[in-house]
Amino acid sequence: MKIDGVSYRNVWLDSDGWAIRIFDQTKLPWQVEQIRLTTWEEAAHAIRSMQVRGAPAIGAVAAYGVALAMRSAPATLDAVLDALNETRPTAVNLRWALDRQRAKLHNLPAELRAAAAYQEAEDIADDDVESCRRIGENGLPLLQAIAAKKGRVNVLTHCNAGWLATVDWGTALAPIYTAHDAGLDVHVWVDETRPRNQGAALTAFELGAHGVAHTVIADNAGGHYMQHGEVDIVIVGADRVTRTGDVANKIGTYLKALAAHDNAVPFWVALPHSTLDMRVRDGVSEIPIEERSGTEVTEMTGRTADGRIETVRVVAAGSAAANPAFDVTPARLVTGLITERGCCAADEAALLEMYPEKA
Amino acid sequence: MKIDGVSYRNVWLDSDGWAIRIFDQTKLPWQVEQIRLTTWEEAAHAIRSMQVRGAPAIGAVAAYGVALAMRSAPATLDAVLDALNETRPTAVNLRWALDRQRAKLHNLPAELRAAAAYQEAEDIADDDVESCRRIGENGLPLLQAIAAKKGRVNVLTHCNAGWLATVDWGTALAPIYTAHDAGLDVHVWVDETRPRNQGAALTAFELGAHGVAHTVIADNAGGHYMQHGEVDIVIVGADRVTRTGDVANKIGTYLKALAAHDNAVPFWVALPHSTLDMRVRDGVSEIPIEERSGTEVTEMTGRTADGRIETVRVVAAGSAAANPAFDVTPARLVTGLITERGCCAADEAALLEMYPEKA
Repeated sequence: MKIDGVSYRNVWLDSDGWAIRIFDQTKLPWQVEQIRLTTWEEAAHAIRSMQVRGAPAIGAVAAYGVALAMRSAPATLDAVLDALNETRPTAVNLRWALDRQRAKLHNLPAELRAAAAYQEAEDIADDDVESCRRIGENGLPLLQAIAAKKGRVNVLTHCNAGWLATVDWGTALAPIYTAHDAGLDVHVWVDETRPRNQGAALTAFELGAHGVAHTVIADNAGGHYMQHGEVDIVIVGADRVTRTGDVANKIGTYLKALAAHDNAVPFWVALPHSTLDMRVRDGVSEIPIEERSGTEVTEMTGRTADGRIETVRVVAAGSAAANPAFDVTPARLVTGLITERGCCAADEAALLEMYPEKA
Repeated sequence: MKIDGVSYRNVWLDSDGWAIRIFDQTKLPWQVEQIRLTTWEEAAHAIRSMQVRGAPAIGAVAAYGVALAMRSAPATLDAVLDALNETRPTAVNLRWALDRQRAKLHNLPAELRAAAAYQEAEDIADDDVESCRRIGENGLPLLQAIAAKKGRVNVLTHCNAGWLATVDWGTALAPIYTAHDAGLDVHVWVDETRPRNQGAALTAFELGAHGVAHTVIADNAGGHYMQHGEVDIVIVGADRVTRTGDVANKIGTYLKALAAHDNAVPFWVALPHSTLDMRVRDGVSEIPIEERSGTEVTEMTGRTADGRIETVRVVAAGSAAANPAFDVTPARLVTGLITERGCCAADEAALLEMYPEKA
């Protein structure tokens, strides 16, 4: 995708051929700054501190992190895989990418590991780009059907599942970009997505840069708009989808799924195969939910009218905050899944038909 | 209720016997500043700008606003009533208080209007205090029943329906204060309540000042806690309750009601009689929902680490925001109503039995 007319991926190999570059997403949308990662520890820090976030994107950065480690200390493979796997607990793409590196590298002699790890990381990144491109194509007919009936298509999305959450294109936003580029009149309700404001900061930034009409709303507002017919479809991404179709995604997704269900608004989840976790059946009881610092709730960072970046406390002094980062939407509330292979129901039979090799 | 050990009402007559005092709630929790209202225009501004907010509180301030007008220009009664009625559209207590003043004053000769208006405003304020005190008593058994079963009682509330939203005690928070004072182990999940953060700023401030255990959470988090058994009961206030039990309240209330329903968590609404609007049947289609400025979404105000109050933009530059201030929770999602006369179901039959004079 493009920033100021220049095409970028969200994770890429530096021109020196070995370091990794990402955007510092903790500084967006106010500063477009790149970070150069030169060690696996820097890659781990970038994931943990959410300089890079989004399930597919952290999978790719973790894979490149393994490559950085193999370049300097190929004997540390197991320790590096374990450490990177612990950077964040909820998204399964992280483990998926590390499992791919483990399978590729563990039987290789030390001197061959670096080259193989870079190749595997590149394959993972390319796989993600292609998956997301196809998710866009496969989701397009859903939006075309609405447009055929009523012209403008109002999509609601939560958090950021755009190109900043993947290597390129995005998951939930891929059908939106594809529809916009195909000339459909698409308008996006962008949930602010407290506490980290990925909607207000990242999704609004992405959509604005691409010229897609959008309106930022408080996370509280989506149900009201659905009650009044202002939302035609909800599309969100996912951090992990279980064998039975339960969906772990950014905290608050479950509330929007309930409102969509209550108002007969279709609720779709866009994901690449790497987000599937066929080892888990019951999402609510089995998926670990990351608890992040309460300061993400008590403090907010933004730009003052005169251009300074300031962090302010927004919670009464002395009051504590809790901060679960994800929730699980039961499959019964999900209209369907948009994957790189097509659309399917959120249930075990449909997933096994779509991905028979994962049985 | 008390601030630093000193008892206050939230709306009161100044020591000069005619001006009105309120706290400037746009400055809380960082500065506890009083505002002295000396004209009805200042009262209208205080309501419109949300220096005072909360359905019962704005009813009382509007009533005192009429008194201020009658003091200087008793012939302006109708114009003042109309202007005050237009300050905010959703809460019905405002109209209720103005209707009381109209009934009391319109047949009085000009020279008697001021004294009568002050008396009526005082009666309205006293009525609210007594109603809220009884709401506390009537809600207490709900919390006692939970405490008897499991010890600690986890209550979730949305927005601020405490003493800062009324003349004293609060509506949703009245049973919590009453239970706390009775020695129950009550813990409150406080929804931040974007975009104006009444939960993070006002409810947290109130509960902290009174010593009630509480934790601030993003509005997105409540459904997750309900899924995991961490919420025993939801209690919210209301800006308007229809004849059929539909509940207009702060934007996002509907999402919490859906989550409570999905997880079999009791969802109670606390209100005084002045919040009932028996003229309205269908809340979703009939209650006007105030649309406030998008800057309430795009900007946040808080305190920097070194003590300055700063306003920062938190939405990507160039992106617009929409800001519906209330939503409507259908009666089917409401377990029951806590009123000054007792608890009842959220339906027409129960409301008519509780308030036969309103038939």
